[in-house]
Amino acid sequence: MKKSALQAARASYQPKLPVEISGAVTVVEGKPTTSVADQDEIKKLFPNTYGLPEITFERASADRKQGEPINVGVILSGGQAPGGHNVISGIFDGIKSINKQSRLYGFLMGPGGFVDHQYIELTSDIIDQYRNTGGFDIIGSGRTKLEKKDQFDKGLEILRKLNISALVIIGGDDSNTNAAVLAEYYKEIGAGVQVIGCPKTIDGDLKNNVIETSFGFDTATKVYSEVIGNIQRDCNSAKKYYHFIKLMGRSASHIALECALQVQPNVCIISEEVEAKNMTLDDVVQQIADVVAYRAAKGWNFGTILIPEGLIEFIPAIKKLIAELNDLLASKGAEFAKVEADKQREWIIANLSADNAKIYESLPAGVARQLSLDRDPHGNVQVSLIETEKLLSEMVAKRLGEMKVAGKYNGKFSPLHHFFGYEGRCADPSNFDADYCYALGFNAACLIEAGVTGYMSSVRNLTLPSVQWKAGGIPITMMMNMERRNGELKPVIQKALVKLDGKPFLEFASKRKEWAENTCYMYPGPIQFWGPAEVCDRTTMTLYYENK
Amino acid sequence: MKKSALQAARASYQPKLPVEISGAVTVVEGKPTTSVADQDEIKKLFPNTYGLPEITFERASADRKQGEPINVGVILSGGQAPGGHNVISGIFDGIKSINKQSRLYGFLMGPGGFVDHQYIELTSDIIDQYRNTGGFDIIGSGRTKLEKKDQFDKGLEILRKLNISALVIIGGDDSNTNAAVLAEYYKEIGAGVQVIGCPKTIDGDLKNNVIETSFGFDTATKVYSEVIGNIQRDCNSAKKYYHFIKLMGRSASHIALECALQVQPNVCIISEEVEAKNMTLDDVVQQIADVVAYRAAKGWNFGTILIPEGLIEFIPAIKKLIAELNDLLASKGAEFAKVEADKQREWIIANLSADNAKIYESLPAGVARQLSLDRDPHGNVQVSLIETEKLLSEMVAKRLGEMKVAGKYNGKFSPLHHFFGYEGRCADPSNFDADYCYALGFNAACLIEAGVTGYMSSVRNLTLPSVQWKAGGIPITMMMNMERRNGELKPVIQKALVKLDGKPFLEFASKRKEWAENTCYMYPGPIQFWGPAEVCDRTTMTLYYENK
Repeated sequence: MKKSALQAARASYQPKLPVEISGAVTVVEGKPTTSVADQDEIKKLFPNTYGLPEITFERASADRKQGEPINVGVILSGGQAPGGHNVISGIFDGIKSINKQSRLYGFLMGPGGFVDHQYIELTSDIIDQYRNTGGFDIIGSGRTKLEKKDQFDKGLEILRKLNISALVIIGGDDSNTNAAVLAEYYKEIGAGVQVIGCPKTIDGDLKNNVIETSFGFDTATKVYSEVIGNIQRDCNSAKKYYHFIKLMGRSASHIALECALQVQPNVCIISEEVEAKNMTLDDVVQQIADVVAYRAAKGWNFGTILIPEGLIEFIPAIKKLIAELNDLLASKGAEFAKVEADKQREWIIANLSADNAKIYESLPAGVARQLSLDRDPHGNVQVSLIETEKLLSEMVAKRLGEMKVAGKYNGKFSPLHHFFGYEGRCADPSNFDADYCYALGFNAACLIEAGVTGYMSSVRNLTLPSVQWKAGGIPITMMMNMERRNGELKPVIQKALVKLDGKPFLEFASKRKEWAENTCYMYPGPIQFWGPAEVCDRTTMTLYYENK
Repeated sequence: MKKSALQAARASYQPKLPVEISGAVTVVEGKPTTSVADQDEIKKLFPNTYGLPEITFERASADRKQGEPINVGVILSGGQAPGGHNVISGIFDGIKSINKQSRLYGFLMGPGGFVDHQYIELTSDIIDQYRNTGGFDIIGSGRTKLEKKDQFDKGLEILRKLNISALVIIGGDDSNTNAAVLAEYYKEIGAGVQVIGCPKTIDGDLKNNVIETSFGFDTATKVYSEVIGNIQRDCNSAKKYYHFIKLMGRSASHIALECALQVQPNVCIISEEVEAKNMTLDDVVQQIADVVAYRAAKGWNFGTILIPEGLIEFIPAIKKLIAELNDLLASKGAEFAKVEADKQREWIIANLSADNAKIYESLPAGVARQLSLDRDPHGNVQVSLIETEKLLSEMVAKRLGEMKVAGKYNGKFSPLHHFFGYEGRCADPSNFDADYCYALGFNAACLIEAGVTGYMSSVRNLTLPSVQWKAGGIPITMMMNMERRNGELKPVIQKALVKLDGKPFLEFASKRKEWAENTCYMYPGPIQFWGPAEVCDRTTMTLYYENK
């Protein structure tokens, strides 16, 4: 692998460990825990791993003693996030510090590799190639869901064969839910295999009272903020375009909110607010059009609009329309298939309830067609295919046209569109993520040494310098509640949405009028690995405000 | 203006000047110059500024003496490029080093501000806010073409009023051509105003034997390479997508070539090669499909394809089709307007010559419709609206389908699309561009002090450390030839296309088979301002290979 100059120089970065786990550790057990909700149901489903105590590590006065060698397996699950390679190098260094004979095995291309027995041994030669780099390419990732007993049993075969006694699953909320189920199962059958989870996702929606942030969120949002900042500077130089910028994050708007706090755009839509206020698509369009008109009156025909990827699915009226469309096309699909192309729109309008027909009619023709024609293998409308940034700018343009006729707008509106997602998921981890991930991995090794299972690796106090972070473990069941998934009540880790009474959102809400009516753009610039600490080592605005 | 942490820290960066102009300078005149072609015509058009000598500056042994104060005007012309603010701060520091009473005036929103007398005085308070930052927002830019005598006369009024005796025009090839015309005119009428040009454009197409590169190309291509590298790492982690990545650069493919040399993608199309080899769109599609099929046979259904924005206009057959379409819709526009929407395609095919009809038929329906419907105010087809990245991936998908039927391909093809342009034009300038731009500006002040006009600021030996760069001035007429523009023969600076016998292209051509058949991705990472010199101070691969 030929390395870029930056990679070559960055390879020698030594992530800073929390001081508690940088030598011999003492395990401190807290009180028994309970799940965030539905305690009785969760307890019943996890008889062997429910109610375990929270664990914290303290620095022992003695020197670190060599323990027995231990073989560990690791799985990368789901979408990429910057820092995954550092979690793995942290686990590697952690188990080697227990005993040099310890071995680390990586299962290939996600949970599928665990079930199908595809793996490699991760030796120091390999690990050293990937320290402080982005991507999940060291072993690959995948989206196979690890949730059935036959998968668990199949996986156990390879664990036995390789003499692996602990498995680390690096993933998002669903993958960690599955890690808890697997831990419970292995405990129940006496398999003698510990399961430890690590909180990963750029979306930032795996967090709670005990997990301050998921890894990757810091780096990804910095990359997006870099390019949005650059676009804003262009926007403010040329003064002639409206940039509609869609950002990853289907199930929560943390990314859009964090970027907004970093770049101070003219508009940022937060899906959770749209849902909570029961806003219609029309309301969102009017909100943007009003900002455009206000700025035009000042002579400014330029601006930036941030849009979370999942917006459409948060709009209550659109959700209802989609639900009815799914039902309609399921029940009358055969009839619809016979309708001529240029009559399909009419047919759908005629067959929908009055409210939904009206909403369907208000959508631009292309989007409406997409909703009725492009369906997934289960026959469902594919909301994710809708280019929300274009849908909104098209509807805003139409609205501005109406406002012009009514004498309420007089300006030029030239929209440009962007979508940022893949640009940030595999970026080189920032100093924060490099340290955080390495600590999460090293700490996972400490949890393994402590003999626990069904825990998530937890590193906290993240707004302090990394050596002052606190390390420990949280029983995964503690984060669970019961939710309906595909019609079935299941124990799952609560997904963290943007809290409308949380400090990051309140900060945004208190500033957005000023940002809309003026040009307050910030230009964060590219992630720096060297240089002043206030540039290199700062973490997210979200963490900053949450801890302020 | 609230500053990001990076901006605050970066403000104190002191660009390194070439040692020759860092103190008192001696002006060394070379031999009289001639234009690159059409010497007689150019000489006739520029009787007062043709044949001037090239100028180099040498370090004088004496200390720098204070000269007379001088008032200078500056204009940013055309699209943004990283480093424009440093050119301006270089001019500012340069004229202040001549005499502290010198003043710098910035004309607002491009050449239009010069003609309309919109300006501000650029004082140190303002300048210091913009040192080492991206964007052109200090005075804005615009695309008004400065080419008519009444504009020149109108501009002269404000120059007189402000007692400005020198004007610096920061722009691309056309803007510098106009600077030469303006210089000639002011000389001819004895206006007593010098005109100096500075070579700006991220496209990299303003360069020649005496101008090694235009500013902004270094930074912009580094930003694009950063995000493409990140996408490649994602691509190589998920192993399931083909990323079609379009890059800015309509009239030349330098950006795509430079990015390819930095990131080593699976495919990069170079428009100049497509034209030189008289390739059809079908040839380009087949070339990509062959790479996809080859990789699929190895089990790899992922890859990256770089596409220059201007590709379509370089394909000879498409150029002919567009020319005929323009003629057809001009001559039979009224008839076409009456054709029903669903009959338009047929009508066009029936009215085109056989060859062009065949090409038109081969285009995806959406693109074909765009070609016939979306025309600019002059009635011309708007080639720039075509989403080339989607056009290609759609045609590749179709071709792969045919190859599958023929048993020549067996794989999955999931394309994703990106376009990078606005992300790089206003990025914070790299150390290279920060130094280069500051030197170009400071050097422009030296040229003003030397009393010359019709020169371009020239800083050379750019692969050496910046203190060793050579500074001087090149008569703009030296870079000119006669070209047909809008039907008229005009003296213009030759646009620099990618040379197919140049070392950067030859390096790419020698490696592309290996990059296509394997996965050799490089991950350059974000621009670094601090840290090891080999990371922070390296310039482009293009300059590296050109000087190797």
